[in-house]
Amino acid sequence: MTATPGPFSPPARILLGPGPAMVDPRVLQAMAQTPLGHLDPTFHGVMQDVRAMLRQAFRTSNPLTLAISGTGTAGMEAAIANVVQPADRIVVCVAGYFGARMAEMVRRLGGEAILVEVPWGEVVPAERVEETLDSARRSGAPARAVCLVHAETSTGVLQPLDDIVRLTHAHGAIVVVDAVTSLGGVALDVDGAGGGEGIDLSYSGAQKCLGAPPGLAPLTAGARALAVMEGRRTPPVSFNLDLALLERYWGRERAYHHTAPINSVYALREALRLAIDEGLDARVARHRRVHDQLRSGVAGLGLEFLVDERWRLPVLNALKVPDGVDDGAVRGRLLEEHNIEIGGGLGPLAGRIWRVGLMGYSAREENVARFLTAMRIILGAPRMSRPPRRT
Amino acid sequence: MTATPGPFSPPARILLGPGPAMVDPRVLQAMAQTPLGHLDPTFHGVMQDVRAMLRQAFRTSNPLTLAISGTGTAGMEAAIANVVQPADRIVVCVAGYFGARMAEMVRRLGGEAILVEVPWGEVVPAERVEETLDSARRSGAPARAVCLVHAETSTGVLQPLDDIVRLTHAHGAIVVVDAVTSLGGVALDVDGAGGGEGIDLSYSGAQKCLGAPPGLAPLTAGARALAVMEGRRTPPVSFNLDLALLERYWGRERAYHHTAPINSVYALREALRLAIDEGLDARVARHRRVHDQLRSGVAGLGLEFLVDERWRLPVLNALKVPDGVDDGAVRGRLLEEHNIEIGGGLGPLAGRIWRVGLMGYSAREENVARFLTAMRIILGAPRMSRPPRRT
Repeated sequence: MTATPGPFSPPARILLGPGPAMVDPRVLQAMAQTPLGHLDPTFHGVMQDVRAMLRQAFRTSNPLTLAISGTGTAGMEAAIANVVQPADRIVVCVAGYFGARMAEMVRRLGGEAILVEVPWGEVVPAERVEETLDSARRSGAPARAVCLVHAETSTGVLQPLDDIVRLTHAHGAIVVVDAVTSLGGVALDVDGAGGGEGIDLSYSGAQKCLGAPPGLAPLTAGARALAVMEGRRTPPVSFNLDLALLERYWGRERAYHHTAPINSVYALREALRLAIDEGLDARVARHRRVHDQLRSGVAGLGLEFLVDERWRLPVLNALKVPDGVDDGAVRGRLLEEHNIEIGGGLGPLAGRIWRVGLMGYSAREENVARFLTAMRIILGAPRMSRPPRRT
Repeated sequence: MTATPGPFSPPARILLGPGPAMVDPRVLQAMAQTPLGHLDPTFHGVMQDVRAMLRQAFRTSNPLTLAISGTGTAGMEAAIANVVQPADRIVVCVAGYFGARMAEMVRRLGGEAILVEVPWGEVVPAERVEETLDSARRSGAPARAVCLVHAETSTGVLQPLDDIVRLTHAHGAIVVVDAVTSLGGVALDVDGAGGGEGIDLSYSGAQKCLGAPPGLAPLTAGARALAVMEGRRTPPVSFNLDLALLERYWGRERAYHHTAPINSVYALREALRLAIDEGLDARVARHRRVHDQLRSGVAGLGLEFLVDERWRLPVLNALKVPDGVDDGAVRGRLLEEHNIEIGGGLGPLAGRIWRVGLMGYSAREENVARFLTAMRIILGAPRMSRPPRRT
């Protein structure tokens, strides 16, 4: 019989990694309220508030806008599983870890993933997507969708969307956009993208720039995406993520599907409320401002960005680990001595970059200042303490 | 531009429906603590505490014991998607809504669901399962698994497991048990079931008898289930629910897979801690005691149980709606006038039963007393108010 552990109390970390970000105390208090039943008319009202505010955040009028009861990974799988049918050809832009994950999901679901690959740290040129769509069309089996990541969390690249939206539609396919790290932190205009043609399907996570704890994945689907879903030969393999059933649960029917994570929905509602009160444009400007502060500061430390300035994602900053510096040791000292979390690199960038997230409630000047001070100590200061002398 | 809604404050409901149940304020406070990064060594320690306590709750030594980052429905899909491959034959016991849902998932995943059906409100006899397994074996395509629900939330039946565990193993198949509504409220012995042969794969939900908010699905898999998973020809169609990847995330490797819902894990840790402090046997006895209190009380109201006393599930009580009584009107008055939520019937039992859940923190004598008082007023009291007379 092992002893029961005592109550847990987390250390007061400054979260500047790739997510989760810190959470406003008001959001945590909202989360700690007593749960309601998930079919209670009062809770249904909470769900409708969340839908309405998610539409504002995504800048869309899509009726099918809701939060998947799961993580951002569940949001990605919801988007892909509802679109892809076996043998479908899907163009997937792979410029980092999360693009590669979209391709993996397409393949597991029986689709054929046609990759448009670029080195990690670069953007996907629209011409490459167009060539790939052309080639698929010429082969007689045109692609059903183009999947791409707006803000590639593994590299710190912000992918331009407009041209890809237009040319994908011109090829009769739909655009699926991963907005996990962009929604609420950089400009995203679901209905306005591509000169008003619009992104067809997009999903995000609660725990990045929206400022809620992890556990919900906002998702929105427009008319073209609905047409693809309604034209399926078979229902999605996932009952859990079937958007037709989820829409009936979130909608007027209140048809039972699963038990929503009530307290997480409370938290998301409060986080959205605070985001919209701040103003979405003001929020994007704040994320930009703390990024600029970071950029000035790291220049003073002699650190360089991985990504060309034109494509740099302000909310996730990939900094090159200087030659001769031990990536893990620096991150360990930041965490243990300064209570600051940053992320390491993934895949080919492991050991080569640090990922500094400035998202949501983490995106504050005091946090950047603390990070810069800590890095100055760790990277630059002469060793102040010596081993005690034996006397 | 719609106005931003104000902060939300839920009414103080007594939750006596099929779930979510009420949550101890200590669990809600644990949930409201500041998030840590999901790969933070301190958070990894929290995950290990949760694993150890889940093993105690499930009464298992299975190394692969963790919480799926999703709802009970995600837990069900995780269990089925990791086992079922296309064309697999799976015996599914259907005695209510959740058995039917297991069959639906098997079919969506490309498996052949061989149903053992009984009327809702009855148990599945072990002989029927044995006949079905025999018949499948004689046909040359034996079943790979038997899926069944331990506590059928739609009917209030507690399904005996021991005989089915033994005969399923004798047929070379594995047993998958839905323990969403049983874990923490009625006796469940994963390793001891079937005279020590053990249940091979089982999942639950955080929000029922364990007393945490919804959003996590405890799951445990034993050696026979692992052998089936390792023998797959293809990986599971769900990346999000791939247990091999989830084990690497929860285990020593801390290999990134998704961002765990940190605050929900805090809450589950605290709920498990309180459950184990109470003592699992004492907790089961408490659930039984408040059920007995309810049973005595509803007898005084002239209400009858749907389910034969031998199979009655103490934590979810299906009461027949008396002839001439309007199901929805009674539930509406309970909610609006008394702040008490109970559930209605699903499927063929819609309008015919009320479902009174006594789970976790809801399973307290004061709640039963309030429910009985309210029902006495609604069902039995003479009409005290009259329409005002015109004068």
